[in-house]
Amino acid sequence: MGERGMKLLLGLVVVALSSAGYGVVGLNIWPMPKSVNHGKQSLLLSKNFALDTEGSKYTDSSSILKDGFSRLLDVIQVSHNIDENSTYYDHSQLLKGLHVVIFSPYDKLQFGIDESYKLTVPSTGNPSYAHLEAQTVYGALHGLQTFSQLCNINFSTRIIEVHQVPWIIIDQPRFLYRGLLIDTARHYQPLPMIKNVITAMGYTKLNVLHWHIVDSQSFPLEIPSYPKLWKGAYSPSERYTMADAAEVVDFARRRGIHVLAEIDVPGHAGSWGVGYPSLWPSPTCQQPLDVSNEFTFKVIDGILSDFSKVFNFRFVHLGGDEVDTSRLNKKGLNESEAYEYFVLRAQKIALSHGYEVINWEETFNHFGSKLNPSTVVHNWLEGNVAPRVVAAGLRCIVSNQDKWYLDHLDATWDQFYMNEPFANITNSKQQKLVIGDIEQTIWPRAAAAAERMWTPFNKLAKDPRQVTGRLAHFRCLLNQRGVAAAPLAGLGRAVPVEPGSCYKQ
Amino acid sequence: MGERGMKLLLGLVVVALSSAGYGVVGLNIWPMPKSVNHGKQSLLLSKNFALDTEGSKYTDSSSILKDGFSRLLDVIQVSHNIDENSTYYDHSQLLKGLHVVIFSPYDKLQFGIDESYKLTVPSTGNPSYAHLEAQTVYGALHGLQTFSQLCNINFSTRIIEVHQVPWIIIDQPRFLYRGLLIDTARHYQPLPMIKNVITAMGYTKLNVLHWHIVDSQSFPLEIPSYPKLWKGAYSPSERYTMADAAEVVDFARRRGIHVLAEIDVPGHAGSWGVGYPSLWPSPTCQQPLDVSNEFTFKVIDGILSDFSKVFNFRFVHLGGDEVDTSRLNKKGLNESEAYEYFVLRAQKIALSHGYEVINWEETFNHFGSKLNPSTVVHNWLEGNVAPRVVAAGLRCIVSNQDKWYLDHLDATWDQFYMNEPFANITNSKQQKLVIGDIEQTIWPRAAAAAERMWTPFNKLAKDPRQVTGRLAHFRCLLNQRGVAAAPLAGLGRAVPVEPGSCYKQ
Repeated sequence: MGERGMKLLLGLVVVALSSAGYGVVGLNIWPMPKSVNHGKQSLLLSKNFALDTEGSKYTDSSSILKDGFSRLLDVIQVSHNIDENSTYYDHSQLLKGLHVVIFSPYDKLQFGIDESYKLTVPSTGNPSYAHLEAQTVYGALHGLQTFSQLCNINFSTRIIEVHQVPWIIIDQPRFLYRGLLIDTARHYQPLPMIKNVITAMGYTKLNVLHWHIVDSQSFPLEIPSYPKLWKGAYSPSERYTMADAAEVVDFARRRGIHVLAEIDVPGHAGSWGVGYPSLWPSPTCQQPLDVSNEFTFKVIDGILSDFSKVFNFRFVHLGGDEVDTSRLNKKGLNESEAYEYFVLRAQKIALSHGYEVINWEETFNHFGSKLNPSTVVHNWLEGNVAPRVVAAGLRCIVSNQDKWYLDHLDATWDQFYMNEPFANITNSKQQKLVIGDIEQTIWPRAAAAAERMWTPFNKLAKDPRQVTGRLAHFRCLLNQRGVAAAPLAGLGRAVPVEPGSCYKQ
Repeated sequence: MGERGMKLLLGLVVVALSSAGYGVVGLNIWPMPKSVNHGKQSLLLSKNFALDTEGSKYTDSSSILKDGFSRLLDVIQVSHNIDENSTYYDHSQLLKGLHVVIFSPYDKLQFGIDESYKLTVPSTGNPSYAHLEAQTVYGALHGLQTFSQLCNINFSTRIIEVHQVPWIIIDQPRFLYRGLLIDTARHYQPLPMIKNVITAMGYTKLNVLHWHIVDSQSFPLEIPSYPKLWKGAYSPSERYTMADAAEVVDFARRRGIHVLAEIDVPGHAGSWGVGYPSLWPSPTCQQPLDVSNEFTFKVIDGILSDFSKVFNFRFVHLGGDEVDTSRLNKKGLNESEAYEYFVLRAQKIALSHGYEVINWEETFNHFGSKLNPSTVVHNWLEGNVAPRVVAAGLRCIVSNQDKWYLDHLDATWDQFYMNEPFANITNSKQQKLVIGDIEQTIWPRAAAAAERMWTPFNKLAKDPRQVTGRLAHFRCLLNQRGVAAAPLAGLGRAVPVEPGSCYKQ
């Protein structure tokens, strides 16, 4: 038996070993693609697995595809150090690279852009290539994510394998809007944390980061037009510069993810008055925003003007939920009229800056017919509003709190899984109006012990209350550096008991 | 008033603003240095803040200092994007760089190495430099960490400031051994997680990562001499190659952190028999390791031989705790004698590979006088063994579980802080023998919803139990990529209810 036969035999051993591996049985792709066909063979990834874009109409001048491919190479190694042993290679089983063909030369990330892709991996070849076709580079990025999930490290041979070849995967999303909300007002999230969330969103093919930036508790974002607004931040260091926001938008865009910015007016804006007290109805009554003060609308206009230079998504979110209308006073208007007046005027300002508006469902419940017809109604209460919204011809984002609120720790993954946006909506025209939606044990306690071991005994506090403030400061520093340090108060891995500054938890 | 006066005025305004900032009052350094003197003025960090090593005897040929300085520049910006505005600069207040003088040309990281440093920051200069002196590069790294904690971003001026100048800080650790234990046997920790822990250890000046690598539940590490051992891993992907271990050691070393490897024999080694069943006393009795089998000691020798090529710390940890001695059977020896025989023979093997041995306290409690005199006894039960260990002339690591066990979630940071290694040890000679010791809400639930939104309705599982295995697989993939995804079982942010594979939680 010649050398080639020997290698083939080793190749077969590889296949046999890998078939016995964990997780190979069944189909391990998440989320499940639209159409999947696969075989039972295995291919080996070339050490020099390369990107080939011959025939592609997309020139990738800003390296979106190239960077995505580079991230693919990183994640398929899942951080392991592999000393490759080329003697195991059977060249008839070698996958030499990925051939990507993108049909559109444009990479402006617009809402509703084609996110489909077709991914095929052959079963043999000498050498062979996987093929990925997509209308847009963003569809191609989804294809790269799917391809990464077909790859497995074989720890015996030190080779990355593609199991279950040949593959034919044809895929596109069910909903154009697949959002995840982060709230940086109740708890400041450092930029590395936000980037980690965006990176993981890419893994699950989510495409909208709904950034609930500011709320009554804090105003962390710089607004150049009204520079005192971020005086409402929890502390000077719990802030985002506009350049920070631009970086988040760019980081997300390069992964095919839109950023939806929200200002939740008028009911969740108490922090605005820290810098501009006249926005409050009175010093003792700090909510909602004063509807009778023209300055209120000037500030909203300034914010949305500044937003429009950075947050280039088609939509802006204007909130409108949980408004204590009894405190809305404007001459000549009753409570309900004042609420409607406020929301509709804010909508007009947003429209003037080129945005379409998203509002929480209370606005629809109160004066749905008066909302601008381009309004998207955002459900958050129970599951019944969506059918009424789409029956009224408006678009709706479904994220009912009983099933899709991540901070409801008693909602389990299977309840998340079974929550159906189309519940009670059977008309296919109405269905099209539903656009979908949806890191503390070690620190700071180890830091407390670390001081006990480093610091001279006579310098140690005799009562821990003497160092609470300093340790709280250090814990905030850890958070800012991307370390998920838990609050000081409470037990290990505790969650903050209420909204507030990291310096106070 | 000339231009210079104007700038000085602005400079003063800057100082006034920053003095009003959060956290400036008091001394925010963690852990507290040995000696600190400071003033009340502020300096501004130059945009081109630079490292100067003139006069240093250390050539930094492997860039340990240069990389540490580069990390310093990163962390003081805490990931923010600052558009610097040089018009705010008052050059009499400018800190142009850090002058580092290291006296030792050597950078071999040895136990007991000099970790002291002296850091001074002047109050004026035109331009001025901060000065850092250290015997070793590792002392200098501690000085860089301290310097980073003196820096603050001023969001109004977009300049990084050093508050409370002038500074004179003279510092060195109280204990030479400041450890943190991670257990990768009960729960596999991906390399990015381990690196994050090491990075944060640097922030708190801890210097020993105690890596409890393997235990009865799993054997994740590759052992080239006995390649079937890691068949005891939870799954093929929950593994470390020896190259991974070497990378962890190197990553830690470059931050001045030792890696202490542990094999916990004979009582915590049930997983060893998955690959080599003859290590078990019998197929039904899988613990402790079979003391009557010469192969047991051959495997320990092979492991420690492989360890000695990668884990170059002076110590190795051989466990020895929680041994069910009633199952230790060796002809001619009673239970107690068999336990002693095992531990002392394992010690000899370790010594033959150049290691000094650390053992858990039970070994001392049973036959303390027989232990090799170089043995370090590791306390983990209550707080009373250390006085007896040091009275016997042996060294002791204190980490009593009631106060310094991170997985005891009911132990609060202030209990950690108040736990004193020298409790009941007043003799200073005996004190010298005490060497000290000590990242899930979003995922995978959002991933469940992501599939609901991406996948065609008719492809979605009607019963979530149909997709449990696939989602569990995806959750492990997220973990491996550095995302702290929680177990599937239980509530959001739940901790695993018991040891086990990520695929099964």
